[in-house]
Amino acid sequence: MTDEVEIPEDHPRYQSLLTRHRIEEGVEKGITSKQGLIAEGRGESFDYLLGEETLPSADAAERAAAAQLLLAEHAVLSVNGNVAALVPGETVALAEATGADIEVNLFGRTEERMRAIADHLREHGATNVKGLAADARIPGLEHERGKVDEDGIYDADVVLVPLEDGDRAEALGEMGKTEIVIDLNPLSRSPRTAAIPIIDNIIRAVPNVTEHARDLADASRDELEAIVADFDREAVLDDAERAIRDV
Amino acid sequence: MTDEVEIPEDHPRYQSLLTRHRIEEGVEKGITSKQGLIAEGRGESFDYLLGEETLPSADAAERAAAAQLLLAEHAVLSVNGNVAALVPGETVALAEATGADIEVNLFGRTEERMRAIADHLREHGATNVKGLAADARIPGLEHERGKVDEDGIYDADVVLVPLEDGDRAEALGEMGKTEIVIDLNPLSRSPRTAAIPIIDNIIRAVPNVTEHARDLADASRDELEAIVADFDREAVLDDAERAIRDV
Repeated sequence: MTDEVEIPEDHPRYQSLLTRHRIEEGVEKGITSKQGLIAEGRGESFDYLLGEETLPSADAAERAAAAQLLLAEHAVLSVNGNVAALVPGETVALAEATGADIEVNLFGRTEERMRAIADHLREHGATNVKGLAADARIPGLEHERGKVDEDGIYDADVVLVPLEDGDRAEALGEMGKTEIVIDLNPLSRSPRTAAIPIIDNIIRAVPNVTEHARDLADASRDELEAIVADFDREAVLDDAERAIRDV
Repeated sequence: MTDEVEIPEDHPRYQSLLTRHRIEEGVEKGITSKQGLIAEGRGESFDYLLGEETLPSADAAERAAAAQLLLAEHAVLSVNGNVAALVPGETVALAEATGADIEVNLFGRTEERMRAIADHLREHGATNVKGLAADARIPGLEHERGKVDEDGIYDADVVLVPLEDGDRAEALGEMGKTEIVIDLNPLSRSPRTAAIPIIDNIIRAVPNVTEHARDLADASRDELEAIVADFDREAVLDDAERAIRDV
């Protein structure tokens, strides 16, 4: 947890400085790829157009995501390079608050990056990091892209896939999994595929899902199911698009 | 000119594949920085929202830019890491078509990157690359950020500054230079500072300015001045913003 030390939380550009610091650290550690840096920039533009804040509709999606994770038989949080770099401790906290597994799953899979990411998550408190076994496959994806753990994503009924590629989001959906996607572009394929699309910066979204999960820790199954049933995915996508287009 | 060989120009994703290829090469050669990769991603998002095509208003700006460069006493094309990586040969062609100088000017200046970029431009046909002398300063900027060549940007009456930082765009404007800025975000400070803001992807914009310059090669001074005088910068910024917001 060395990374927050030098930036006071009340700094007006705290979020942006923290993001930059974590991305730089990700590059140094071999976690963040070139494509990850470009993807970070794409996200920055959409976040800028969104006003760099969590829309009320995104907050509703984050609450529904928390309820869905708490309802799951077996929830898995899928972690790629940018997720590991940007929200390592926050992902561990979310896994703890919801009883979810953490699985490293890379679009550009190399054993070196897999290990660097798993180590980084462990440094931030993760005790059981899946994804290294890679003993199962997502049907419909080419070999490397489809690798998952049999007792991880392959077995999961609910998966959180932040910053996910569209093909994989679709393939996971076709396996019958309930998908929660975090993405800043409401027009991209992965949130459009998701049961619960969260259009928000991952740096704000993951801690907020955790907060909702803690708030809902004592909620009954009926209450959780009602939150998920009342959630309107189209409204979330439309609202984010409107925010981007009409500010 | 090895970089176009493998991508047929009629490929539906030609521009995107070419961009990716050149950025990768830029990273390998030490030309493209981490911040450059993130900036590339930011641009990709805005280009996506613009529909990945040159708006008629951007084409008008590109024609005005060509006229302004042809009218200049001393025009300089400022080249940073992303410009060098993305449009090296195209920048050399524009310099030739307009009689402009090329000067390398980096926000994150290191001698190593300066040299890598100058070499890359020379490989693409540049014969005289300025920026390495750094014997003058742009007033109002901290030491490293303000370094320019006395017989280059410092002396220029017209400067093309693509993908420029807002502070530097403003400081150059305060020196009384006529600025042409290429940027994909119509809301950012640098195009808002420019006499001629071009809201377009640099990969499309630079060759198009060159084409206009060739087309205007025999135009009279009066004709060129009329093109510049008729140019409406507010209309360009408003049109691009409308395109991004209302597609």
